[in-house]
Amino acid sequence: MNIHTTPDGLTIPTYDDVVVAHERIKPYIHRTPVLTSAFMNALTGAELFFKCENFQKAGAFKARGASNAVFGLSEEKAKRGVATHSSGNHGLSLAYAGGRRGIPVTVVMPRTAPEAKKAAVRGYGGTIVECEPSTSSREAVFAEVVAKTGADFVHPYNDPRVIAGQGTCAREMVEELGVLDAVIAPIGGGGMVSGTCLTLSSIAPSVEIYAAEPEQADDAYRSFKAGHIIADDAPNTVADGLKVPLKDLTWHFVSGKVTDILTASEEEIVSAMRLIWERMKIVMEPSSAVPLATILKNRDRFAGKRVGVVITGGNVDLGKLPWLKH
Amino acid sequence: MNIHTTPDGLTIPTYDDVVVAHERIKPYIHRTPVLTSAFMNALTGAELFFKCENFQKAGAFKARGASNAVFGLSEEKAKRGVATHSSGNHGLSLAYAGGRRGIPVTVVMPRTAPEAKKAAVRGYGGTIVECEPSTSSREAVFAEVVAKTGADFVHPYNDPRVIAGQGTCAREMVEELGVLDAVIAPIGGGGMVSGTCLTLSSIAPSVEIYAAEPEQADDAYRSFKAGHIIADDAPNTVADGLKVPLKDLTWHFVSGKVTDILTASEEEIVSAMRLIWERMKIVMEPSSAVPLATILKNRDRFAGKRVGVVITGGNVDLGKLPWLKH
Repeated sequence: MNIHTTPDGLTIPTYDDVVVAHERIKPYIHRTPVLTSAFMNALTGAELFFKCENFQKAGAFKARGASNAVFGLSEEKAKRGVATHSSGNHGLSLAYAGGRRGIPVTVVMPRTAPEAKKAAVRGYGGTIVECEPSTSSREAVFAEVVAKTGADFVHPYNDPRVIAGQGTCAREMVEELGVLDAVIAPIGGGGMVSGTCLTLSSIAPSVEIYAAEPEQADDAYRSFKAGHIIADDAPNTVADGLKVPLKDLTWHFVSGKVTDILTASEEEIVSAMRLIWERMKIVMEPSSAVPLATILKNRDRFAGKRVGVVITGGNVDLGKLPWLKH
Repeated sequence: MNIHTTPDGLTIPTYDDVVVAHERIKPYIHRTPVLTSAFMNALTGAELFFKCENFQKAGAFKARGASNAVFGLSEEKAKRGVATHSSGNHGLSLAYAGGRRGIPVTVVMPRTAPEAKKAAVRGYGGTIVECEPSTSSREAVFAEVVAKTGADFVHPYNDPRVIAGQGTCAREMVEELGVLDAVIAPIGGGGMVSGTCLTLSSIAPSVEIYAAEPEQADDAYRSFKAGHIIADDAPNTVADGLKVPLKDLTWHFVSGKVTDILTASEEEIVSAMRLIWERMKIVMEPSSAVPLATILKNRDRFAGKRVGVVITGGNVDLGKLPWLKH
C-alpha cells in the first residue's frame, strides 16, 4: 500500500490506495445504482442522490472494505484465514469476501445480532463465535479467537485496507455525478465516513462531508465537538449498525475532514426509514435512514444543494420492522 | 391511433401505437432499471432479469397506460376529465397522469383497498368514490359516476390506449436485453400481459410469454384452458392487484399469444415475496411475486433460459405485511 505514517505512528491510507482497491475488488462488488426521487427532492428542497449500497454484495458497503482486505492478502497469509468482530454487516461482508477467495473466516458477533445476519454469515461459509452486546465483551472474546487461529484481523473500520475499500464508494459517486455540494453518510465507527473523506479530499475537496448519527448513540458527535474520542460502552439505538465507537484511524479523518456531525432521534430515524421504503420502494436498514432524518431536521443547510446520500445497507430483519408493534 | 378492428368489432392496438405511446409518455414515466441477482439465478437455474416497475411513477407499470390515455386526449375531452374503477394501482396511476396534465380525475375504489393507495390517489389530486369489493358493485357504482361527470372512461386494462402504454415496458426490455427466451408477468385483467404480447409478437416473436396467477384467483388460467373467458365475482388472494377478470380486448391477446399460464398458492406467493425483499432489497407487492413463485414451481421449464420477470408494482401497505401476524 502507498501508506504514510503520521507522527503518532498511524498507518494512513492514501487516495492511491483507493484506486488500487477499486481495481482489486471490481470482480467481487457491484457498482451500485444511484436513485433519485422527485418526492424526496420536493420534501427536502435539496437535490438528493441516493447511492444504494443496500444493493451491494452481502447487502452493505462493507463488502468493499472486506474484499479489499481479503484479496490484498498474500497467498501465505490468506491460508491462515481472516477474523473480525462486527455488529453484523462487516462480519457478513468478510464472510462473503473470504468465501469468494475460499479461505476460513471467523466472526465474533453479539448474541443479540439479527438472526438474518447470523444465518447469512453461515450461508457464506463463515464461522460465528458469540459475545455479549458490549464493546468490551466483543474485544475480549475476539482476542481469544485470534490467539487460537492465527487469522489476519480485519477490523470493521479501523484498518487502512478497509478504509481504502470504503473510499471506492465516494469515487463511484464522483465518477457518476461529478462534483456534488455535499455528501452525507451515517457514522458508527467511521469507516464509510473516513473512506469518503479520503477520496473526496483528494479528488473533490470542495464537497462538504456530513456524518449522521443517532442521538442515542452520539459518541462521534460528542467526540467531534470535544476534539477527542469519546466512547460509550453499550449505546442503545434502532440503528444497530451505528453503536460502535470511533478509533484512532477513523478519528484522524473525522476530526480533520468532516464538515459537521448531525443527529436524529429514534422516532425521526424510524419515520425516515419508513418514508424511504414507502416512496422509493427499497429495503434498507435503520442506520441508512439516519442521513435523511438529519436532512429533514436541517432543511436550511441542504436546501438548493446537490447532495449525495449513502444508503449504507439493506440487511434488516423482515420479521421485526421498527414501525410495527411485535 | 393506428388501430385495426376485428370481425368482432374490437379495437385492437398495433405495435405502431406502442411506439407512439412510448414517445408520448417519456416525459412522465421512468425508464425503470433491470436488476439481476446471483442468488436468484442460482436458486432457479435460470438467468432472471427483473424489470422493476415498482420504481415506476406512482409505484406501478400502470403509470404507462394511464399516461398514454391522459396525454392522448384532445384539449376539449381533457377538460371534462377522466374516470376509472381500479383495485388500486390503475386508479393511482390515472390520478398521477391527470395531475401531471392538470385535469380532474375520479376513481371508484373498493372500500377495502389499502389505505396507502387511497391516500396516494388523493395526494395526486384525485377524487375517490368507494364501492363494495366485488366486480359487480364496482361496475354499477362506476356507471353512475360517468353519467354524472361526463368524464372519459379509462378502463384499467380493457382499453387499447392502456394496452399500448403497457407495451412500452416490454419494448424497453428488448432494447436493453435483446431477445430473451421468455418473459413472465402476473395476470389479473391482462393489461400488462396484453401489452407484452403486442410488443413481443411484433419485434421479438420467438420469445415465450408466460402469465402467472394466484391459484385462488385463477380465472385467467381456467379461461385459457377452456378457450373462453371465465370470470369470478370476488376472488380472495393476497395478490390484491390480480382479482379482476379478463375482458374481450385482453382475451384477444391472452388467448392468441400467451405460451402458458402458471399458478401459485398463497403460501408460495408470500414466500417468494419475502425472498425478493430479503435478497434483492426491493419493496414490491404480493402480485409482483407471483412470477417468481411460479418459476420456482416450474424449474424445468425455465432452467437455462434468459427470462424477463416483470415486477409490476411496489404499493404495499407497510403497516400490514403478509408474512407477519397482525
